[in-house]
Amino acid sequence: MGIKEEAKKMKLAAPRLAASSIEKRNAALAAIADALLNHKEDVFAANKKDMTSAVEEDISPAIRKRLKFDEGKMKDSIEGLKGLIALPDPLGKVTLNRELDDDLVLKRIGVPIGVIGVIFEARPDAMIQVASLCIKSGNCAILKGGSETKESNRVIFSIIKDAIKTAGLPEESLYQAEQRSEISELLECDEYVDLLIPRGSNSFVRYIMENTKIPVMGHSAGICHIYVDKEADFELAKKVIIDAKTNYPAACNAVETILVSEDIKESFLPELTAALGDAHVEIKENAYGVEYGDLTVSVLTVKDVEEAVTHINTYGSHHTDCIITKNDETADYFETMVDSAGVYRNCSTRFADGFRYGFGAEVGISTGKLHARGPVGLDGLLTYKYILEGNGNIVSDYASGKRSFTHKDI
Amino acid sequence: MGIKEEAKKMKLAAPRLAASSIEKRNAALAAIADALLNHKEDVFAANKKDMTSAVEEDISPAIRKRLKFDEGKMKDSIEGLKGLIALPDPLGKVTLNRELDDDLVLKRIGVPIGVIGVIFEARPDAMIQVASLCIKSGNCAILKGGSETKESNRVIFSIIKDAIKTAGLPEESLYQAEQRSEISELLECDEYVDLLIPRGSNSFVRYIMENTKIPVMGHSAGICHIYVDKEADFELAKKVIIDAKTNYPAACNAVETILVSEDIKESFLPELTAALGDAHVEIKENAYGVEYGDLTVSVLTVKDVEEAVTHINTYGSHHTDCIITKNDETADYFETMVDSAGVYRNCSTRFADGFRYGFGAEVGISTGKLHARGPVGLDGLLTYKYILEGNGNIVSDYASGKRSFTHKDI
Repeated sequence: MGIKEEAKKMKLAAPRLAASSIEKRNAALAAIADALLNHKEDVFAANKKDMTSAVEEDISPAIRKRLKFDEGKMKDSIEGLKGLIALPDPLGKVTLNRELDDDLVLKRIGVPIGVIGVIFEARPDAMIQVASLCIKSGNCAILKGGSETKESNRVIFSIIKDAIKTAGLPEESLYQAEQRSEISELLECDEYVDLLIPRGSNSFVRYIMENTKIPVMGHSAGICHIYVDKEADFELAKKVIIDAKTNYPAACNAVETILVSEDIKESFLPELTAALGDAHVEIKENAYGVEYGDLTVSVLTVKDVEEAVTHINTYGSHHTDCIITKNDETADYFETMVDSAGVYRNCSTRFADGFRYGFGAEVGISTGKLHARGPVGLDGLLTYKYILEGNGNIVSDYASGKRSFTHKDI
Repeated sequence: MGIKEEAKKMKLAAPRLAASSIEKRNAALAAIADALLNHKEDVFAANKKDMTSAVEEDISPAIRKRLKFDEGKMKDSIEGLKGLIALPDPLGKVTLNRELDDDLVLKRIGVPIGVIGVIFEARPDAMIQVASLCIKSGNCAILKGGSETKESNRVIFSIIKDAIKTAGLPEESLYQAEQRSEISELLECDEYVDLLIPRGSNSFVRYIMENTKIPVMGHSAGICHIYVDKEADFELAKKVIIDAKTNYPAACNAVETILVSEDIKESFLPELTAALGDAHVEIKENAYGVEYGDLTVSVLTVKDVEEAVTHINTYGSHHTDCIITKNDETADYFETMVDSAGVYRNCSTRFADGFRYGFGAEVGISTGKLHARGPVGLDGLLTYKYILEGNGNIVSDYASGKRSFTHKDI
């Protein structure tokens, strides 16, 4: 059966999953944790096969490190599941309770989005994390993990599928796509799938955005800036810049362009150049708006904070941008004027992350402005609906003036 | 100068408008109200030209009624502006205030979306309403009204433009597109425009959605259902159905399909048929999933509430659907399981409207599930950003265990 048929069944199952109790959803998460522990030898054996194939296919050591699922990652995954179980039920929250008239009451209630397609990187722990976020938030999901982890994902997904059955949740709630060819089929499912979350390289996310009518949540690029103001603490500036560039250069929240105030060109630039050199970072002087993703950084001078803001709003990707300054007024100006998901002062851009923000878990980072912006936690997987209960109320009575609205929040 | 250049300038002006004080934004709204009153003869004269052209071009009386801008509509517009001035500032609201560590504080703050394109129907009062909503919410906007109101809109827009100048807001904040050809140019501005809000027929909204990379907020169709349960109050059911179908048949929240429980086929259907006949409503018996937009309605029988829910979730447009029943349990089931922006009990689907919900003003109605769902007020024109202030904090200290997160809401 193809993805389209699975998605169609999911669309009809979605209201049943949405209506399921938090007890059942948490029981499914607990069952996943138990089964992972009980079958950990099976998971490790499958992972060993993936690791062997990765060596045979000459996959880079950096990627192989992410493929590996060992005791440490198992422990983290179990802890992640327990953390998720401990979170309150995100569904059913009443965010508006308003009497429109004596006998006509409007409520706005948090509900799952419905059917979500998540395409994620080759990491066995990502499968556990994504599936459990969808279960907790009551969303049906089509899951496609990186093909380099297909053996591990097959075992893990069968554990997850058993757990939702045992917990009494609809079986159709989750589906694993295993073939790369299924992605293009998924992109055609705009009738049944409410949201796509692609994780991976920018070119991949852009490809998804450009080839589907389904709304997409993801980051299109991570061109982060640090502006060093004339009133910066130089030591602090160097420390933050080195961390933001070197802590994990491939991450979307790594810094790509350093803007330096012209006023400190002579006093600060030589220091910065030396520090970057010590950290093996290559400097490009006339480039900007580039996402390097490695130990390379653009360094430019700008006249002042206003020019820095204009540069960032023009050439940045509205992800995360930072000012280094001791001046509160300059910082306020920067924080107000920079149009990015994260605007920072005196700290590393690498903090832009759901776990570091304390969201418990992260679905991804959004550089879009609609629905969810920045690191996205469980909240990003929710929408709401309006419930209106009356007693035979009709609009023509209010239009004619026979009755009138009270609009009283209760 | 083309739309693209205007949009580019707007993108840079957007942070300045976003940073403007509520006093200035309210002053602009007050100046619009004053100028409309002071120049009302100019507005009426321009509107007379539009009305004359409409007669010459043989435009239907129903549309001509919407084109007309008279003392009554002027009064409503002024009241609308005063109501908007009275609303609290939607910007700067702190929705998260969290200490990540002793010296690292995260805030989430409400901000405008940025640059919005609104394409709206030929109604002079719509120009006033849309422009004032954008000003209040701090959004720059490209406004394109129906060409049948071009004379009225030109006078009204020049009043609005003067008002924002007088109030000290950036002049580039608002731009009026007057040519239909400018719409296709606007659709190409995905680099500068953050959101498009098309209002009008479903085919027009669909055309916009299918021809741009800019996110679109709008309703794709309004196929609303009323399910009459076996435990319904028949008189109430007829009253609600007649209102939902006849009060304004062209509206997206008018009912299109009536589902009747098989158990009351013989007792209720003849009564319903007679009532619809008296109201000049034509009944189609084997059609469903159709948006008639006139005095036509589909009537079908279904086995029970479960079949009604499946029918609605399959053939509806997730706009607004209603159950008529005296049974609380059946109503609960319906409200939980129907996947629509509005799920109603015992009242007309025509209540699905921002003014009736008490939102003060409405930008449109969204049948999408992301960002905003159902009638959209000022809230739908907002997003947020994260502000993080530190003291030289770097991620590697937290990764190495040298420091740890406190994650304490303050």
